[in-house]
Amino acid sequence: MDYYQLDTKTAADYIRSLPEMKEIFSDFDHLDVKEVGDGNLNFVFIVSNSNNLEETVVLKQAVPFLRVVGKSWPLSRERMNSEVNALRFQHDLCSDLVPAIYHSSEDMSVVIMQNLNKHLILRGEIIRGKKFPKLAEDVSTFLAKTLFYSSDLYLPADVKKQNVAKTINVELCKITEDFVFTHPYEANETNDYNPELADSSIALIQRDSAVRAAVAEMKYAFMTQAESLLHGDLHIGSIMANEEETYVIDPEFSFYGPMGFDIGAMVGNLLLSYFSQEYRQREMGNDPAEYRTWILETIETIWQKFEEKFLKLWQEHEEKSELPFMGADLNAESAVAYRKKFMEKLLSDTIGFSACKMMRRIVGLAKVADIADISDLKERAKAEEFVLRMGSNMVVNRDSFKNIQDLTALAKEMSPVGG
Amino acid sequence: MDYYQLDTKTAADYIRSLPEMKEIFSDFDHLDVKEVGDGNLNFVFIVSNSNNLEETVVLKQAVPFLRVVGKSWPLSRERMNSEVNALRFQHDLCSDLVPAIYHSSEDMSVVIMQNLNKHLILRGEIIRGKKFPKLAEDVSTFLAKTLFYSSDLYLPADVKKQNVAKTINVELCKITEDFVFTHPYEANETNDYNPELADSSIALIQRDSAVRAAVAEMKYAFMTQAESLLHGDLHIGSIMANEEETYVIDPEFSFYGPMGFDIGAMVGNLLLSYFSQEYRQREMGNDPAEYRTWILETIETIWQKFEEKFLKLWQEHEEKSELPFMGADLNAESAVAYRKKFMEKLLSDTIGFSACKMMRRIVGLAKVADIADISDLKERAKAEEFVLRMGSNMVVNRDSFKNIQDLTALAKEMSPVGG
Repeated sequence: MDYYQLDTKTAADYIRSLPEMKEIFSDFDHLDVKEVGDGNLNFVFIVSNSNNLEETVVLKQAVPFLRVVGKSWPLSRERMNSEVNALRFQHDLCSDLVPAIYHSSEDMSVVIMQNLNKHLILRGEIIRGKKFPKLAEDVSTFLAKTLFYSSDLYLPADVKKQNVAKTINVELCKITEDFVFTHPYEANETNDYNPELADSSIALIQRDSAVRAAVAEMKYAFMTQAESLLHGDLHIGSIMANEEETYVIDPEFSFYGPMGFDIGAMVGNLLLSYFSQEYRQREMGNDPAEYRTWILETIETIWQKFEEKFLKLWQEHEEKSELPFMGADLNAESAVAYRKKFMEKLLSDTIGFSACKMMRRIVGLAKVADIADISDLKERAKAEEFVLRMGSNMVVNRDSFKNIQDLTALAKEMSPVGG
Repeated sequence: MDYYQLDTKTAADYIRSLPEMKEIFSDFDHLDVKEVGDGNLNFVFIVSNSNNLEETVVLKQAVPFLRVVGKSWPLSRERMNSEVNALRFQHDLCSDLVPAIYHSSEDMSVVIMQNLNKHLILRGEIIRGKKFPKLAEDVSTFLAKTLFYSSDLYLPADVKKQNVAKTINVELCKITEDFVFTHPYEANETNDYNPELADSSIALIQRDSAVRAAVAEMKYAFMTQAESLLHGDLHIGSIMANEEETYVIDPEFSFYGPMGFDIGAMVGNLLLSYFSQEYRQREMGNDPAEYRTWILETIETIWQKFEEKFLKLWQEHEEKSELPFMGADLNAESAVAYRKKFMEKLLSDTIGFSACKMMRRIVGLAKVADIADISDLKERAKAEEFVLRMGSNMVVNRDSFKNIQDLTALAKEMSPVGG
């Protein structure tokens, strides 16, 4: 099939042409198509049977440019292959945490999948101060399974190497390399500054040699450390949730990279929320302490449960396998010693990548609404300065955090939960 | 062309069938073919014009098994593609340090190249106590150029990623993963022990949790850290030299891996020589101090000149380029700070990989003649114990060596140059 760009009319015809859609829709006569305008990269349509709203799918199509900018920013449609590959891998492992795929077409750069119509994007909900009691449990499961089962700790070495080669994602990695790891730290013309943010705060990340060197180390690790098949963009806008369920979506940035990049994206985005909620909770008339404590507890629980689940998968796999990664454990203490070292390095990576994800949201092109939508620019600048101070400290000192509580303690020390 | 295995008769016919060989041989009537029996993996023939011995080539062919074991150890012929790719890349950068390729055939898994008939394998010469005044200069040039020009510090990100995918080398990496990083530390049945080596010495690397964990970290780094197109097996048996010239050969283990693995192979093999030469020099009737001092100075000079050349290539590239890896250096100190960090990490990797390369040569399947050919097994065991003590110390403490002199000082502390 030759590629063509779908619209609300042709999307319905496209659905009708697919035999597998008969399993979703009892009839094709009342298909209602709505375009959802909030994707940065792709076009997204919700297709429903207006006679039975339970019959509904999401259709996502990549176009040969960056949707949010337009044809002046060309971007190959290959990103849809990365997304479909990652979605299938993640759904196979975590079927209740990743939408089901009903159909995909490489020719059309299309994926049709489960419509999460009982869930909302997590970022908006967190901005509104809503708590998600299952979030840490679900996110830690997603991270533990996807990162372990794609790694050298589980896969045969040949399969892992073939996977690395098959999943390179040149263009979307370049966006991360530029916009997370380079431009924010060099006064690039794509940067975007709150006019109330002091130059001295910006200098913390643009003119401090230790910070600049540490960020470059994280960029180099991002580009060279092919550990696991990552989601690649796991911020709280890539999660849809309600009180009972959590779904991870939009893995088009997927590639083989450092595990800490995915975990760090979650941690970093929650820290951004933490610093924004001091003002936001006050504005809502609340004592900020309660919600901000929940955010820090969620960070701690994500890491602790991730660590516990990841180590359990690893240990169980090696008990079954005759070929443990490090070879036979002759003194019955070596495997534990290695796992401890592994987790120390992973915590350091997580904190380093967190920091980069946080700092770039303050001065880089792409913002987070948690902070950027604070209309009082002086209040916004206060939150931004906390983020830059926290992030620069984290990336430079990432090896000295002994556990996740050291990180949340630093956040509280910089900005006490009650404000 | 269908693949067939060449022998001394058909190798001559094969040469005659190639038009480009007319540029090497003035006639095809007096071709003399000798098989060189010392390759572990491949068949190697020297083809010369017996009327003019200056007209001579080396023909190397991969067979679908490990030559030294036979058909019971199958190994795909793809390794020749890795070798040819690496040879061309290295020769383009270092034409006087890597043999010229005259012809290669993927169908036949053949490469025909410059015959280094005025050079000898470095290991044998070093065992005999010969000094090579140009070795450090040449090896450091080879390392600096090949590691820099294939890295993310030089290549555009898309080209680097495509290169990683194209150069995966599943089978030969597996040999390294098993025989360098796993079997020697787990009492594997493939191991091979000097009967005079004490169990307590073997336990240093097989039953010490800190050593086992550190070796596992190096294995994981080997498998995940895709920095540069490595030689992959850069020991002193992969170098042919005379007093004037140095050539690096046999890069069939080439793949995108950690820079420190190549540098560490050189350093580790020279340290193995250092520990062997205490006995060997005495046997030759010499004071061991002089030659052993030369070995340690060579290690120091390789690292120092490598560092100097690598940093110079990096700095010159960034001065020309408008896109330095870390972005613009706004305070004119950040680039230097990052390079310092980069080199600290690289020295740590180098020492860690050195250590693994050293320890495996003592208890693993593949030995080095420097030590294994010492016929007095008690003297051999003395050298072996030094290597295991040195190697286990190095891998555990690899982050605490501040410069290369810290490493050579440790060698001298363990075993003074004079014995």
